[in-house]
Amino acid sequence: MTRASRAAVDLATVVAARCDELAAISAMPDGIRRVHLSPEHAAANALAARWMAEAGLRTWVDAAGNLHGRTGDDDRPVLVVGSHLDTVVDAGRYDGTVGVLTGIAVVELLGDRVHDLPVAIEVVAFTDEEGTRFGKALLGSSAMAGVWDDAWWDLEDEDGTTLRDAATAFGLDPARIHEAAVDPSTLVGYLEAHIEQGPYLDRAGQALGVVTSIASARRFSVDVVGEARHAGGTPYESRHDALLGAAEGALAVERTCIREQHVGTVGTMHVEPGAVNVVPGHARFSVDLRGEFDEGRDRVWETIEDAFAEIADRRGLRITATEVHRAPAVVCAPRLMDAVRAGIVATGQQQPLELFSRAGHDAMSLGLVTDVAMLFLRNPDGISHHPDEAVSVDDVALGIDAMTTAVTIVATGAAP
Amino acid sequence: MTRASRAAVDLATVVAARCDELAAISAMPDGIRRVHLSPEHAAANALAARWMAEAGLRTWVDAAGNLHGRTGDDDRPVLVVGSHLDTVVDAGRYDGTVGVLTGIAVVELLGDRVHDLPVAIEVVAFTDEEGTRFGKALLGSSAMAGVWDDAWWDLEDEDGTTLRDAATAFGLDPARIHEAAVDPSTLVGYLEAHIEQGPYLDRAGQALGVVTSIASARRFSVDVVGEARHAGGTPYESRHDALLGAAEGALAVERTCIREQHVGTVGTMHVEPGAVNVVPGHARFSVDLRGEFDEGRDRVWETIEDAFAEIADRRGLRITATEVHRAPAVVCAPRLMDAVRAGIVATGQQQPLELFSRAGHDAMSLGLVTDVAMLFLRNPDGISHHPDEAVSVDDVALGIDAMTTAVTIVATGAAP
Repeated sequence: MTRASRAAVDLATVVAARCDELAAISAMPDGIRRVHLSPEHAAANALAARWMAEAGLRTWVDAAGNLHGRTGDDDRPVLVVGSHLDTVVDAGRYDGTVGVLTGIAVVELLGDRVHDLPVAIEVVAFTDEEGTRFGKALLGSSAMAGVWDDAWWDLEDEDGTTLRDAATAFGLDPARIHEAAVDPSTLVGYLEAHIEQGPYLDRAGQALGVVTSIASARRFSVDVVGEARHAGGTPYESRHDALLGAAEGALAVERTCIREQHVGTVGTMHVEPGAVNVVPGHARFSVDLRGEFDEGRDRVWETIEDAFAEIADRRGLRITATEVHRAPAVVCAPRLMDAVRAGIVATGQQQPLELFSRAGHDAMSLGLVTDVAMLFLRNPDGISHHPDEAVSVDDVALGIDAMTTAVTIVATGAAP
Repeated sequence: MTRASRAAVDLATVVAARCDELAAISAMPDGIRRVHLSPEHAAANALAARWMAEAGLRTWVDAAGNLHGRTGDDDRPVLVVGSHLDTVVDAGRYDGTVGVLTGIAVVELLGDRVHDLPVAIEVVAFTDEEGTRFGKALLGSSAMAGVWDDAWWDLEDEDGTTLRDAATAFGLDPARIHEAAVDPSTLVGYLEAHIEQGPYLDRAGQALGVVTSIASARRFSVDVVGEARHAGGTPYESRHDALLGAAEGALAVERTCIREQHVGTVGTMHVEPGAVNVVPGHARFSVDLRGEFDEGRDRVWETIEDAFAEIADRRGLRITATEVHRAPAVVCAPRLMDAVRAGIVATGQQQPLELFSRAGHDAMSLGLVTDVAMLFLRNPDGISHHPDEAVSVDDVALGIDAMTTAVTIVATGAAP
């Protein structure tokens, strides 16, 4: 029998109300869209900064647009607790947001005890975890991890605005981006609470889970080149239909990943010339491929590429895949996982589910410079990146208690 | 052995040069795009009107934007010879254009003899045969056939401009559209020369062919509704992936049409939300279905719809098809086909190929008010709706000779 503390239940109610307040900051009239360097980004940062300040945190926005709130103003080592405030298009209201607000709630729950800890707690609200606006994900946490690539400044959004111009218009100085990088030697570790974005906790009947690793991911842009021909006069044997090749390619991704127990998704498809009476001469689609380990993921991709080659050969098409993103699996640190597990057990939940995250998270970037671990919150039916995304107030309360325990264990260096 | 007249060879050279001149009137820098009611439409009409006037034709633009050029100014019955000057996007330079210019060349070849004919020859350059801008094809010829539907005025182009506003901006008065309708009792018939847009003449080694009927066609917009979900966290058994359903649907169209010897094309595909890391919740694609007879076409569509239902059921999707266009097969008139055949035979080509047109043509609209027939010109490898679209000057010369003979036979009422 799990049970949240009275204080955590009260804070969870506040977190839920704050999620609703943030949901109202959107560039869509009937849904949520809050992207990097937008007016909504600035508004969300300002609102979260107010809540951080009310929790007694000293706040600032770094050179990448991430919002930070830290306990105290000394040079104690820092334990970072974070997640992100940006969203996909037509998003739910908990992805990322609930992790940032849990971080603030942990500080509120600790109250004056926070000043007795041998480390400072720094809550970070990352920007651009999703990569919605410029295609490249994890921009905010990459800057903090000190792995910024100046080539990213030339990335364009759908209106043709470069990341450089968007940052300048937001009030940031691209020349100072490296000031967002943290000194790894000052860090104790990184903890992140997040909704699962999958159904496994829900199916197991558990509120909270321990993340063991974050999926190894690769993303590709696949071009299929055939020949545009008249839709009436061209017999099938003379066709080189790029759309049909892409259709078979998308189905090959699904078939291969199901067989190999990986996850592959074709999320976009563009067809040219895109006329009702013309056989498509060109199609482009994306492949998002995830697995628990890098090796398995790469083997699956090779199998998919073999399938593409067979399709291209049979249909007289040219199919080429360009890798646009690659992230190695990030393995969580046993020391931090133990603390998270102890936090969950303290809520009364025995033998917490351990699971790998099929979704990417800011913890992937932070994992480049410090130890990381994550706490997952039950997400009914695993619906995420959708307006129906949900998490219960009860589970958020349990998450606040578990995270507070975990933070205390890590901060004090106590064995769980 | 076929042989064109010396005069026709000279005129075919002029036709080829005029195709090049028209190709330069385009809204694309490196290709051809000339759509209904655009500045390019006005420029092409003006250029063709000059050539018509040089051939001695009296010219006018009707209330729909079609360009007409007629011999004489009396009330003799009218034999219409036409095709269209509008194009698809990134088009070839002969589809439609070569038919209009052949009509002018026939008048030039007849010279003074044209005035001795008991009928007037009216060359018509139709607008919007392709339907590129507003989605609805055959707008110009439908207006001339008197089957205009006022609901079409609300059709929008991709910029949201309505057909009504575009017509007004072009200098036309929507209230007078019915003045474009021809009085059927004044017509003797309609003849159209056109490149084949298919490979059958090329394969048979024949320059010219007689069209027996014009394909029966239906077009549909198909919506696939699933559920947008996170691409990482959602296991396959929880997915309702609209893109994969659409991919299977497109392949079902191909499989069914090959088996049933029809022609079906999926030319467009739009996916939402269209993000690399989100399982698509919605996909929309077009189906263009053609067959020689209405009954067979409808039976094939039922088979395709059964396949869609099976896909929807298996994947937990909702698939709905909306018909956006339907045109019955138009059977060419034996009297006019005989004249076209006689015209071809007179060039020295024995036993001309008879074939049905899998592509739609302005003759479909004119077939609602008068007898129609078509002459097809060989189209190397059947490449059309593509910059590589071609026709040889030799074949155009033979076409001019054949069409001149056909026009003379029809105009004089002579038996071929």
